[in-house]
Amino acid sequence: MTEFVKNAAGRLIPTHINDKEVVPFQGVGKYRPQGRKYAPPIKTVADYPEDGDKRVASLKDALIKAGLKDGMTISTHHHFRNGDILANQIFDIAAEMGVKDLVWYPSASFPCHEHLIQYLESGVIHHIEGSMNGPLGRFASQGKMRGQGVLRSHGGRYQAVQDGDVHIDIAIIAAPCADPFGNANGLYGDAACGLLGFALADSEYADQVVVVTDNMVPFPCIPWQIQGNNVDITVEVDKIGIPEKIVSGTTKVTKSPDRLLIAEMTAQFCDEAGLIKEGFSFQAGAGGTSLSIGIYFGEIMRKKGIKARFARGGSNQYLVKMFEEGLVEHILDGQTFDLEGVRSMRENPTHVNTSPFTSYNYHGKGNFASLIDIVILGATEVDTNFNANVVTHSDGYLLHGIGGWQNCLFGKTVILPIPLFRDRIPVIVDEVTTLCGPGDLIDVIVTERGIAVNPKRKDLLEKLKDSELPIKTIEELKAEAEEICGKPQKPEFDDEVIAAIKWVDGTVIDVVRKIKE
Amino acid sequence: MTEFVKNAAGRLIPTHINDKEVVPFQGVGKYRPQGRKYAPPIKTVADYPEDGDKRVASLKDALIKAGLKDGMTISTHHHFRNGDILANQIFDIAAEMGVKDLVWYPSASFPCHEHLIQYLESGVIHHIEGSMNGPLGRFASQGKMRGQGVLRSHGGRYQAVQDGDVHIDIAIIAAPCADPFGNANGLYGDAACGLLGFALADSEYADQVVVVTDNMVPFPCIPWQIQGNNVDITVEVDKIGIPEKIVSGTTKVTKSPDRLLIAEMTAQFCDEAGLIKEGFSFQAGAGGTSLSIGIYFGEIMRKKGIKARFARGGSNQYLVKMFEEGLVEHILDGQTFDLEGVRSMRENPTHVNTSPFTSYNYHGKGNFASLIDIVILGATEVDTNFNANVVTHSDGYLLHGIGGWQNCLFGKTVILPIPLFRDRIPVIVDEVTTLCGPGDLIDVIVTERGIAVNPKRKDLLEKLKDSELPIKTIEELKAEAEEICGKPQKPEFDDEVIAAIKWVDGTVIDVVRKIKE
Repeated sequence: MTEFVKNAAGRLIPTHINDKEVVPFQGVGKYRPQGRKYAPPIKTVADYPEDGDKRVASLKDALIKAGLKDGMTISTHHHFRNGDILANQIFDIAAEMGVKDLVWYPSASFPCHEHLIQYLESGVIHHIEGSMNGPLGRFASQGKMRGQGVLRSHGGRYQAVQDGDVHIDIAIIAAPCADPFGNANGLYGDAACGLLGFALADSEYADQVVVVTDNMVPFPCIPWQIQGNNVDITVEVDKIGIPEKIVSGTTKVTKSPDRLLIAEMTAQFCDEAGLIKEGFSFQAGAGGTSLSIGIYFGEIMRKKGIKARFARGGSNQYLVKMFEEGLVEHILDGQTFDLEGVRSMRENPTHVNTSPFTSYNYHGKGNFASLIDIVILGATEVDTNFNANVVTHSDGYLLHGIGGWQNCLFGKTVILPIPLFRDRIPVIVDEVTTLCGPGDLIDVIVTERGIAVNPKRKDLLEKLKDSELPIKTIEELKAEAEEICGKPQKPEFDDEVIAAIKWVDGTVIDVVRKIKE
Repeated sequence: MTEFVKNAAGRLIPTHINDKEVVPFQGVGKYRPQGRKYAPPIKTVADYPEDGDKRVASLKDALIKAGLKDGMTISTHHHFRNGDILANQIFDIAAEMGVKDLVWYPSASFPCHEHLIQYLESGVIHHIEGSMNGPLGRFASQGKMRGQGVLRSHGGRYQAVQDGDVHIDIAIIAAPCADPFGNANGLYGDAACGLLGFALADSEYADQVVVVTDNMVPFPCIPWQIQGNNVDITVEVDKIGIPEKIVSGTTKVTKSPDRLLIAEMTAQFCDEAGLIKEGFSFQAGAGGTSLSIGIYFGEIMRKKGIKARFARGGSNQYLVKMFEEGLVEHILDGQTFDLEGVRSMRENPTHVNTSPFTSYNYHGKGNFASLIDIVILGATEVDTNFNANVVTHSDGYLLHGIGGWQNCLFGKTVILPIPLFRDRIPVIVDEVTTLCGPGDLIDVIVTERGIAVNPKRKDLLEKLKDSELPIKTIEELKAEAEEICGKPQKPEFDDEVIAAIKWVDGTVIDVVRKIKE
């Protein structure tokens, strides 16, 4: 029987999600996991083809061989982003076979997966555990999904699989390059996407692992980002994705004057705070503002003769340029965002593919996220306690996934460069619609009209005390926004919980409720 | 209560080894493992240093922090071969701390570990699970070890850890290059040994994983053959091994006319059998004869314009030369045997480091061993049923480990090029002293006086039927040897079992008994 409890962030959350008991958020670093990792069944080589050829004729044959049946959890990865075509095909086949009540466990979903709404309606898919970008999120927000969504960070997804919170029956890994044994990488072929790190947990822990490729090479497929020793079945198909939607040929820097200003202020802030120093590290995404920040960082580094020890990708042409110029010694890449990123990863041994295990898994013996000096992230909303939201808009609709966002909050200085308002709706609010990240972990908000430093970062405030940058309190920023746009209206919700937001340790930090009709 | 049963190979083996029940060998591919892999406890990042610096001041501090106490199992790896110094230090410290009844679980031991006999005598070490090359094997054969030895192949060692047959309390990983977080590789530094694959299982499954290096670099140590996310503690020391004993500058081809003849006949046999063909694969070790076979292969390939898709190493200067010349597209390297091997692995992306997981683990979803066309191995004895022994000599002493030998028997054509006699003792016998590999998996014996093909390989006999090579029956070869040397004397044993020989699936294929005084 589901009841509601207040978690350590003061959010009211149910005791059960999809009829399974959940642990309420207990504060950052407070929850102590018990027990042991998920233990997959022991297999024997005697059950696999002696010549290493695990191929079957089609995706349907693979699903049949893998034992697809009602109620199973099927995982996919999102390296092909909006160019993915396999996920839709999997559930087309499931529908054709009359299979019902599946759980889809993607590492993220995209607008291209709107096709699956028919299966959420018909009951082929019971619910989605994973980000729901765009149409699927809107569908869920309207209370139309049978089960409840569960949103996790990339690291949280690894943690959930590792800890056995989610048991994957069949993992489908779309691979730009693979061999019949199942070794696979994302570096070569029409669908080259760089790396396959988001599928690592799936390959390690799923009962049945299927590698699907349109680029089968003779054994050995090198490098083996996915190891064939974890793979049960391989399939060759004509096409696994739409190349032009997987990685764009170019990544675009913002042209908006406001965003360029935010980028420049962010870089200047980091410089004045002494964060850009010999051997430092940074993470910046592939959004327009982030790209510009990276470019400003490069200028400062060149001027001062400073090198970064490493940068975390989302790699893109600008980061690769800095890297190949020698400004950055290593790219620890979680996802390549353009063809230059793919090329560089293919060619440069210090442009390294990472995974949610190495980078983000909170239930490991440390991870890389906390080692990064400067972390640049976004948010849909921030409140005056520096709490942030990345999944819902101020209208209450669930429209984005968490990605690596929560994981990256553990970086040494976390900066959110965000516009003060979007479509005349203030971004800084009294209380975020959905809590995704506790304010304790967020250090700086940079807007086009001022910079707010979290009061707990006295060191930063001290360093910037004589700065000409417009350092303000977050309350001042909020007031400025409200002066211009007025106080934003709060969305109205029903009681029904349509999705849970997991924290990096598997506890529930917040929930998303159905939009009131 | 230990009783004795006859296993499927007809060998009498005890029901218990070190008071733990064992499964008797049931025939190749017959044993079906039950249950699940070993599940390590779930950890949390909250318990590890936020800055990723896991260093402690000394090896002793590391052992204390790791909780060293009586009865624990301590693992080490053998990449430094006879140049290892850490294993001795670990047990010096344990002795100093008064710790007793440890189990040492090395991936192999060497003559340099003779130092540890004092601890086997004093009870600091209860017994060794792992190969015992030379002095330690002799000590065990004399019945002086408190517990029983357990010898496993490299793949069997991975299997045992993965399946939970062996639980490692503390793994000590000596790393030629590492960062404070624990990422490590064998490619750089004074002790460069190429790769660290034998320590993979230890890093994945041990309760406490300690990385020790004499070459600490800033995060990130790239490539991370061992992943810091699996590491608990790091230590910087002055020296982790004796470089000149780790990899020799050169590998030496045999100069013995008999061995050269064996090598040439082996290559010619492979050629006539049609095994050396476009895209083929082979594995040859670093012994003098094997090296020569590789060189003959190269000559044949050059003459015929043939390329190998991959070769399995033990890499060495000769293999690297063929590889860099383009005769071999990939080296899948299990262990580098000289500095050229290390250099090549560092420089060439298709010279790939492998592990017992990828190559040999029998309890996986396939492994690479069965994909290899030509496998060249050695043996101390072969019997007329093609059964072979690699661990004991005809005098009954346990003097060698199994290495990857058992695992490699799964290759498509397995050839043992061996002298007909050693020190006037015939190598082909009625029944091997210790059964390490069933004759069903061994295809060809090449000696300086003739080649015996396993009768079950009718295809090979057919192909070679008009050959000028001296194809004989194995009985004929045995008779020839006995004509020259006389019938060898059998060693005399006590009943006491001093070591178990595990098959690749964890079952017991044979035991070694105490030498009669």
